[in-house]
Amino acid sequence: MVDNEPPPVILTIAGSDSSGGAGIQADLRTFAALGCYGSSAITALTAQNTTGVQGVHPIPPVFVSQQAYFFVDSLLQLSSVLSDIEIHAIKTGMLHDTDVILAIVQALKGHYTGAKMPPIVCDPVCVSTSGHTLLQPGAIGALINDVFPISTLITPNRAEAELLVSSKYPGFTISSLEDMITAATRLVVHGSACLVKGGHITASLQDVERVIKTYSQVSVVKDELLEENMEILQIGNDGLRSPRLVVDVLDLGGDLTLFVRPFIVSENTHGTGCTLSSAIASWLGRGQDLKSAVRSGIMFTHLGITTAHKIGQGHGPLNHLHSISQLIIPKRTPSNPFPFTRLLIQKSQPVWKQYVEHDFVKLLGQGILPKEAFIYFIKQDYHYLKYYARAHGLLASKSNKFSDIHSAADIVLHILRELEMHRSFCAHFGITADELESTPQSIPTIAYGSYLIDIGMQGDSAKLTMALLACLLGYGEVGLWLKREASKPGSWVKLEGNLYLKWIEDYSGSDYQAAVRTGLAKVEEQAVRDPPSPARLQEWCEVWEKCTWLEKSFWDAAMSGDNTTKTS
Amino acid sequence: MVDNEPPPVILTIAGSDSSGGAGIQADLRTFAALGCYGSSAITALTAQNTTGVQGVHPIPPVFVSQQAYFFVDSLLQLSSVLSDIEIHAIKTGMLHDTDVILAIVQALKGHYTGAKMPPIVCDPVCVSTSGHTLLQPGAIGALINDVFPISTLITPNRAEAELLVSSKYPGFTISSLEDMITAATRLVVHGSACLVKGGHITASLQDVERVIKTYSQVSVVKDELLEENMEILQIGNDGLRSPRLVVDVLDLGGDLTLFVRPFIVSENTHGTGCTLSSAIASWLGRGQDLKSAVRSGIMFTHLGITTAHKIGQGHGPLNHLHSISQLIIPKRTPSNPFPFTRLLIQKSQPVWKQYVEHDFVKLLGQGILPKEAFIYFIKQDYHYLKYYARAHGLLASKSNKFSDIHSAADIVLHILRELEMHRSFCAHFGITADELESTPQSIPTIAYGSYLIDIGMQGDSAKLTMALLACLLGYGEVGLWLKREASKPGSWVKLEGNLYLKWIEDYSGSDYQAAVRTGLAKVEEQAVRDPPSPARLQEWCEVWEKCTWLEKSFWDAAMSGDNTTKTS
Repeated sequence: MVDNEPPPVILTIAGSDSSGGAGIQADLRTFAALGCYGSSAITALTAQNTTGVQGVHPIPPVFVSQQAYFFVDSLLQLSSVLSDIEIHAIKTGMLHDTDVILAIVQALKGHYTGAKMPPIVCDPVCVSTSGHTLLQPGAIGALINDVFPISTLITPNRAEAELLVSSKYPGFTISSLEDMITAATRLVVHGSACLVKGGHITASLQDVERVIKTYSQVSVVKDELLEENMEILQIGNDGLRSPRLVVDVLDLGGDLTLFVRPFIVSENTHGTGCTLSSAIASWLGRGQDLKSAVRSGIMFTHLGITTAHKIGQGHGPLNHLHSISQLIIPKRTPSNPFPFTRLLIQKSQPVWKQYVEHDFVKLLGQGILPKEAFIYFIKQDYHYLKYYARAHGLLASKSNKFSDIHSAADIVLHILRELEMHRSFCAHFGITADELESTPQSIPTIAYGSYLIDIGMQGDSAKLTMALLACLLGYGEVGLWLKREASKPGSWVKLEGNLYLKWIEDYSGSDYQAAVRTGLAKVEEQAVRDPPSPARLQEWCEVWEKCTWLEKSFWDAAMSGDNTTKTS
Repeated sequence: MVDNEPPPVILTIAGSDSSGGAGIQADLRTFAALGCYGSSAITALTAQNTTGVQGVHPIPPVFVSQQAYFFVDSLLQLSSVLSDIEIHAIKTGMLHDTDVILAIVQALKGHYTGAKMPPIVCDPVCVSTSGHTLLQPGAIGALINDVFPISTLITPNRAEAELLVSSKYPGFTISSLEDMITAATRLVVHGSACLVKGGHITASLQDVERVIKTYSQVSVVKDELLEENMEILQIGNDGLRSPRLVVDVLDLGGDLTLFVRPFIVSENTHGTGCTLSSAIASWLGRGQDLKSAVRSGIMFTHLGITTAHKIGQGHGPLNHLHSISQLIIPKRTPSNPFPFTRLLIQKSQPVWKQYVEHDFVKLLGQGILPKEAFIYFIKQDYHYLKYYARAHGLLASKSNKFSDIHSAADIVLHILRELEMHRSFCAHFGITADELESTPQSIPTIAYGSYLIDIGMQGDSAKLTMALLACLLGYGEVGLWLKREASKPGSWVKLEGNLYLKWIEDYSGSDYQAAVRTGLAKVEEQAVRDPPSPARLQEWCEVWEKCTWLEKSFWDAAMSGDNTTKTS
C-alpha cells in the first residue's frame, strides 16, 4: 500500500480449501488485495479442487478455539491470538458442526467480555456449489441462535436462505425478488442485518421496478448499468439496454436496499461467497459503513468473476487481484533514501558512468586538461545555461502551485549566479564578455538545449524535471567524486595548483550541493506523490538517459576540439 | 494485475500459522503480492501468534497427501489437486515429521512420473524463531535424503544449516561468511542448490572482500548499497558508507554468489523464511532463472522487513504488500466497456447533467429555442471552434507517435468541416461570414477556449485530451439523448418542422458519433496503457469537470443573452 498506516487486521474463521479458490485461502487473498492483514482460525481442512470436495478433515473444536483464543490456562500459559493482535473485523465461513460453532462463540464472547466486538460478517456456509455438505445438518440451530445474534451481517445465498428460513417456515423456497425480500425479513429477526444473494435468481429491470412499487422502504443501488446521461457508453452494445440482472437484497431491519448489476455467464464462481463476505469484512475493517461495505464487496466480487482466468478443470476461482498493480519504484527506506534516483542511475549505468567519469573530468581533476578544451567547454556551457534557465522558466509556467513556481524561479536565479563563475573563468583565460556572447553554438549545444525545451513543450512538469535532472545531478556527482578521490592518499586528483580548482570547488561546494539535495528531494517526493505507471516510468527513464548521453556528448565535443560547430 | 495472462500457480506444502505472519498464510500473501495464484497443502496447524507457538495440531499424513494428490482410489474416486491445476512452482515449509515427508514425496513423484517436476524451493523448517520444534528430530534424514534431491533450492538459515550439516559433520557451527560457504558446499551434495541465509551472522564489506580473494568462483550482488557513481545518494547519511551487512550465500554447485545488503534492526521478522522461499518460488513460477529469482526474493523479503507495521506484541509479521497499489480505474468488462469514461461522468454527475440536459438543449429539442439564443450560441461556437482546432494542433505537437499526430490532425480537419455547418446555419439566419468573423468573443468563450490552450501548455497530451473530451462527448450525448427521446411515443422532442433539426441530426449522426467512438476508445486505451496514480486521476477529473462546467456556462450565456460580452 502506498501509505504507511498499519493495515486493518481481519480474522477469518473458516475451512481451508487446498485448491486455493475458496475457504481461508480466498479470504486471505481478498484481505491482501484490499490492503488488509489476514489472520485465520481454521475450522476444517478440505481436500478439494475446482471440480468438487474430495475430503473433509475436521479440526477438534478445542483446537479451533485455541487458534482463535487461548484461555489463560494454568497448564498451557498461552496468550491468545485475539489478545495479541487487535482485530478490526471478523468473517466466519465453514463452521462444520455444533461443537465448532459453540467453541468459537464462547471464545469470542469470552475475549470481548465488556468490550465492543469488531464487526462480524457471517457467511452461513452449508453446502458447497458441488453439493458437498459443509455444515452438519444438526448445526443450523447453533448457527441461527448463537452466531447470528453476534453478527453484523449474514450473507446467505439462495439455497442457504431457503434452508435457514425453512427451519421456522418449513418448505420455504425462493424463486423471485419478492421471495428474497421475504427471506431477508425472516432472517433479520435473529439479530443481524441480512444480505440475500441473488446469483441464482433471474431478474430484470422490470422486476426491480415492480419491487420498488410494492415495498415502501426500498432503495436501489445500480452498478455497471447504464445510468442517465450515459447514452454514449452504449454505442455498439444494445445488450446493455435491457440486461439480465443479478440483484442482492440487503435488509438492515426494515430498511431494504437492492444491489443491481449485470448477470455474468461464468464458470469461475468457486469461492464467490467466501470472497464476498471477506471483501465486506475488509471494507468494514477499513471503516466503511455497512451499506457502502456491501456495495464495495459486491463490486469486488463481481469484477473477480468477470476478470477470472481459467484455472483448473471445473468451476475455477475468481480473480482476486483485479484491482492491484505492482509498484515499480521501491519504497523509501533508511538504507535507500532515494529509491527513484537510484533506479534512474541504475537503469542508465553505462551512459551515466561515461558521463561522470569522462576523460574531460579525469584530466580536469589531474589539472592537465588542455586549456583550449576547457575554454571550448566553458563557452558552450555559457550558451547551454541560457537554455537551462529558459527551461526552468518553462517549468515555472507549467507549475500549478506557488511553491513550485517559487522553486523554479529560485533555480533560474541560481543559474544566473553560476554564470558569474563562467564570466570570471573566461576573464581568467583572457576571453571577453563580447567574445563569449558571439561564440557560435555547437551542434551538441543546440541538440541538448533544444531537447530540454522540446521535452518541456511536449510533456508535463514531471517529464521536464527528468530532463533537467541529468545536468544538476551529474555535475554534483562529478564534484563529489573528484573531492573524494582527492582525499585519498596518493590520489590521481591534484587540487594544489590545479588550474581548474575553482571549478571543482564550486560543484563540490555547499551551495551547489544544496541545490542537488533540493532536486533529489523534489523528484523523490514527486515519485511518491504521483507514482508513475510502467509506461510513464519508461518515458521518464528515456528522457533522463538521453540527457545523460547529451551531457557526455557535450564533453566529447570539448575533447574533440569543436569539429561540430558549423552554425551559430 | 494489469495484463490478462493467467497467473502462475504456486503450491505451498507447509504448516498453518493462525496469526497469519508465517506458514501458508505468509506464503499465500506473498504469492498474491507477486501476482501468483496460491494453492496449499497444510501439513500441520499451529496455534501461534507473534510471541510464540502455543500449540501444534498435526494432520494425519494420508490426509496431507490427499490434499496434494489423491490417488485414484476405488473408495474415494477423487481426482487430485495436482492433476486438476497445473502447478508452476512449489515451496515446502514445515513438514512436521517423517511420515508427512514421505507421503508428500511419494505423492509428488507419483504425479510427475515421466514428467518434469516444477521447480521446488524447500525451506527446511526445523525450529521456530521462538524455539519451538517444528520438525521432529528423527525427520532430518528424510528431509535430506528424500526432499533435497527433488528440490531446486534449499534455503536453510544459520541454525538449520548447522543442524543439517551436523548430521554428517557432528558439531558443525557457523560464525563467519567462510563457515556459511562451507555449509553450502556440504549441503549441495544432496542434489539441490543451496542458499544459506545470513540474517544471524554479522558481516562487513571487509568480510566480503576477504571472501572474494579467498574463493575463486565467487560473484557478488549488492542491493541497497552505494555503488560507484552514486556519491550524491549518500548526502547527509554517512552511515551508508560502511554499513553492517547481511550476506546470503548461494551455491549452485561450485558457482557461488554472495547477496549483500544492509542489515536492518527490526522486531518484525516473524515469517521471514516462509516469505523468502515463497517469493523465490513465485519468481521461479514467473519464469525467472534461479539466481534472479533468489535476488528478487531476497529484496522482496528485505523490503517486507524494512516497511513492516507493528502488529501484535512480539516479533511481528513482515509487510508483504509493500510493492502493490490499488488500481483505481476498474477493469474493462463486457458490461462496462468504458470504465474510465464512466468514472469521469460519475464523478462529475451533477455538472454533467446540467450540461447535457441544459434548458438550451431542451428548448432546442422542442423547436422553441429563441432564435436570438441560438444565433448567439452559434456565433460564439464559431470562435470556440478556432480554439478547439488550435488545441488539437497543440495536441499534435505534444504527441510522440505519427499515429497520434495523424489522429489529432484528423480532428482538426473534422472541426473545419463542422465550421461549414455553422456557416450554413448562419446563412440560414441571415448572418454573413463577415458578421460571424467580427462578432466579439464573450467572456465564457474566452474562458473556455483559453483554458484549453492553458491546459495544453501546462500538461502532457493525456491531460490535454481530458480537456478536449467534454466538448466531444457532451455534444454526442446531447445528440443521442434528443434522438432517443424523440423516438418515444408522445415525446417532448419534436423533430418535424424543428428549426434546429439539422443541428440535432448532425450531432446524433454517424459522422459525429464515429468521432465520439474514436475519442472514447482513445481515452480508454490511454487509461489502460498508462494507468494514472490517484493524484494524476484527480487532476484529470478536475480538468474534465471544469470543461463540463465551462460547456454549461457557454449555454448559460446563450440563454441569458450575452450579458458578459465586454471585449472582442
